[in-house]
Amino acid sequence: MSVKLNESYIGRFVSEKDMAEIRGEIERSLQTVKEGTGAGNGYLGWRDLPLNYRTEEYNRIKTAAEKIRRSCDVFVVIGIGGSYLGARAAIEFIKSPKFNELPGTSPKIYFSGNDISAASLSELISICDGKDICVNVISKSGKTTEPAVSFRIFRELLEKKYGEEGARERIFVTTDAHKGALKTLADDKGYESFVVPGNIGGRYSVLTSVGLLPIAVAGCDIDAILSGAVKARKDLIDAPFDVNPCLRYAAIRNIMYRTGKKVEILAAYDGALAMLNEWWKQLYGESEGKEGKGLIPDSVIYTTDLHSLGQMVQEGASDENFNRIFFETVFDVKNARSDISVPFDKDDLDELNYIGGRTLHEINATALKATALAHSDGNVPNLIVELDSRDEKTFGYLVYFFELACAVSGYTLGINPFDQPGVEAYKNNMFALLGKKGEKFDEIRSKLNK
Amino acid sequence: MSVKLNESYIGRFVSEKDMAEIRGEIERSLQTVKEGTGAGNGYLGWRDLPLNYRTEEYNRIKTAAEKIRRSCDVFVVIGIGGSYLGARAAIEFIKSPKFNELPGTSPKIYFSGNDISAASLSELISICDGKDICVNVISKSGKTTEPAVSFRIFRELLEKKYGEEGARERIFVTTDAHKGALKTLADDKGYESFVVPGNIGGRYSVLTSVGLLPIAVAGCDIDAILSGAVKARKDLIDAPFDVNPCLRYAAIRNIMYRTGKKVEILAAYDGALAMLNEWWKQLYGESEGKEGKGLIPDSVIYTTDLHSLGQMVQEGASDENFNRIFFETVFDVKNARSDISVPFDKDDLDELNYIGGRTLHEINATALKATALAHSDGNVPNLIVELDSRDEKTFGYLVYFFELACAVSGYTLGINPFDQPGVEAYKNNMFALLGKKGEKFDEIRSKLNK
Repeated sequence: MSVKLNESYIGRFVSEKDMAEIRGEIERSLQTVKEGTGAGNGYLGWRDLPLNYRTEEYNRIKTAAEKIRRSCDVFVVIGIGGSYLGARAAIEFIKSPKFNELPGTSPKIYFSGNDISAASLSELISICDGKDICVNVISKSGKTTEPAVSFRIFRELLEKKYGEEGARERIFVTTDAHKGALKTLADDKGYESFVVPGNIGGRYSVLTSVGLLPIAVAGCDIDAILSGAVKARKDLIDAPFDVNPCLRYAAIRNIMYRTGKKVEILAAYDGALAMLNEWWKQLYGESEGKEGKGLIPDSVIYTTDLHSLGQMVQEGASDENFNRIFFETVFDVKNARSDISVPFDKDDLDELNYIGGRTLHEINATALKATALAHSDGNVPNLIVELDSRDEKTFGYLVYFFELACAVSGYTLGINPFDQPGVEAYKNNMFALLGKKGEKFDEIRSKLNK
Repeated sequence: MSVKLNESYIGRFVSEKDMAEIRGEIERSLQTVKEGTGAGNGYLGWRDLPLNYRTEEYNRIKTAAEKIRRSCDVFVVIGIGGSYLGARAAIEFIKSPKFNELPGTSPKIYFSGNDISAASLSELISICDGKDICVNVISKSGKTTEPAVSFRIFRELLEKKYGEEGARERIFVTTDAHKGALKTLADDKGYESFVVPGNIGGRYSVLTSVGLLPIAVAGCDIDAILSGAVKARKDLIDAPFDVNPCLRYAAIRNIMYRTGKKVEILAAYDGALAMLNEWWKQLYGESEGKEGKGLIPDSVIYTTDLHSLGQMVQEGASDENFNRIFFETVFDVKNARSDISVPFDKDDLDELNYIGGRTLHEINATALKATALAHSDGNVPNLIVELDSRDEKTFGYLVYFFELACAVSGYTLGINPFDQPGVEAYKNNMFALLGKKGEKFDEIRSKLNK
């Protein structure tokens, strides 16, 4: 398995008895996912996606990615939430968080339409000045405010720069197969289009065209990503509880929740995993944060944040019974892609010669172990998730691992892990405040004016 | 005042009676700060710093910054925790999170020595290839592992590239005034040095040479930053409770804590504030997270994260009595530096014409209001912190605002807001695992081997 759990620091907080007690629930939740008999069962498309990914569309994604790589300096990916985080997480994990700044990177990839900041949009426009541009707009409906605004502006910019004909060759649309504003526009204008599957929600969509096109443009091997997901499905969907890290992860986080933990902190030891953490935060936060339930998903990058939040983790926030209110899930990436040794220094004023000749990867791994021990001593349970390396196959495997675990965890929590009813609340207020007439317009306006 | 509180969304959760009850405590805590009679009173240097900042060293900072700007393409700032976050927060807030990628930026500024990632260090070295480099290493002792490793590597690189003489002109040291490994090295080699004041802890140090040199190299006006801090000190240190936003912020977060909130989420509506949020997380997490106490500091960037964590915030995590376990403190930046209008589209397929002609800043401000209303409806208290604009003066004012509020808040919580005893735990384990002999070596080794 490309993803393993190291439970050696969690044993003091999760007993064999706890695991035995929850096992039946977890297995029933898995069965519910497999049989498609639970709430939100119209959104289980991600479950068998790895079995049938080699479609005509999959081949078109590769061709489009090559075309984009050849024809632009800057590739603008417009999307928000699940139409943003997965691709960015993949590119930073597999390539680098400094992807755009590394020598030789082409095209540079920028994400837009994921906020309403005038500053970030105008900066991106200035970065694009004098460069060749391609755009991929990703939106199921085409009406979500943030990406729709950004796309209006970039479409206008491309049509001015290249003419309507030229822009057509540079705009790639990922949207609903049959309906919606963006589908209609793509058909009208003749843009090449890819499908947001109707049976896969945004946060589960990274292995569809939503994520794969930008990831392929970054030069990642999407065959290898999917092969990782295929392997994960094979490994995880039938393996018994005792040897199934996916089910054990779902079990442990539910046990943590039931024993009073309020927050799950996902920790990584490399900034390249920061956006993976953000993707995970959406997956778990949006799936489980409903009906007053759910762990708050939080994230840190160590050792960086040991020098900012380490004090709080080691000795801070507890409940009225002095129980710590969070636990840590920690990524341990086993293999380094590149490494650097600490040089010796004849004067040794900084007293680093004791690690002279050792590699940063080795020292970072030691920091991880030292921290897991220290935080355990501080009564913070630590669960280690071991990954092979920052490569495509591991990424694909990990995505499937977390998606399946999330569905199982969510059913065990007793919620529908596939809806997000609360996301509409701010949108409805915003539409009312901006004067957009809708179903609840009068009701909301009268409330807002009170 | 450049920083104001908008309490209109918090009233339902914090009564006048609550405020009246805590007022005396808050005023006593402020008195403790002013008289220097509390725990950690050796670290109050930040309190009067704005009164006496125009020193000989301050002028040297400006001269050094000009020299660095003239003589390099890449400026590497080596530091961790308080020697990293403040400068980066300032540069992203005042300039941009895409500072290095914007056309015409010179020198580009990279932060190193804040992790143990081999990948990030080797990427930075490849970015430096063929470029002229200057380095600022910031470390009180010079022995902190992360910056010390990075500095060994960059010093070697500079000495190879420029010779020892040439490197001397390109290395700038910020360290203790009198002692320590880095002070000794700087004196030996003749590096230009700046002082980490002995009476200011790392997380309170951004307005000293620790932060000011990198901030000045980025082209920010440090006179204006300090003038903001001067103004804040004048406004905040004597103003009565009722009209003092700094004291009211300290009061409200303590009331939140006492009424069962576990997490304070700092929300901003522009990615340019993301590192400011990280700086704030260290300031409050490291100051208050001790003796089992403290709010967990968390942060989000909206509207981005409304599409990932919005569901959780709106309807998720609550305690056993169905009380929500977090509250939000929200930055509202009143003035935009640049703005963009939504273009009209004749077909209006995306139905955005209803906001055609309106500016992104206006729409973003509406999203903020809509979200504060929605989250209040979801029983999440929202406190709005209004800022003038993303300029130097506001930054300086805000830093002083949060530092003073943190000291007052910490004393009210009953802890020492200036120490960080828990940060040593992982370091001692790491030294023992790596074989560095120290005071507790045998004790820790025997524990780790169990």
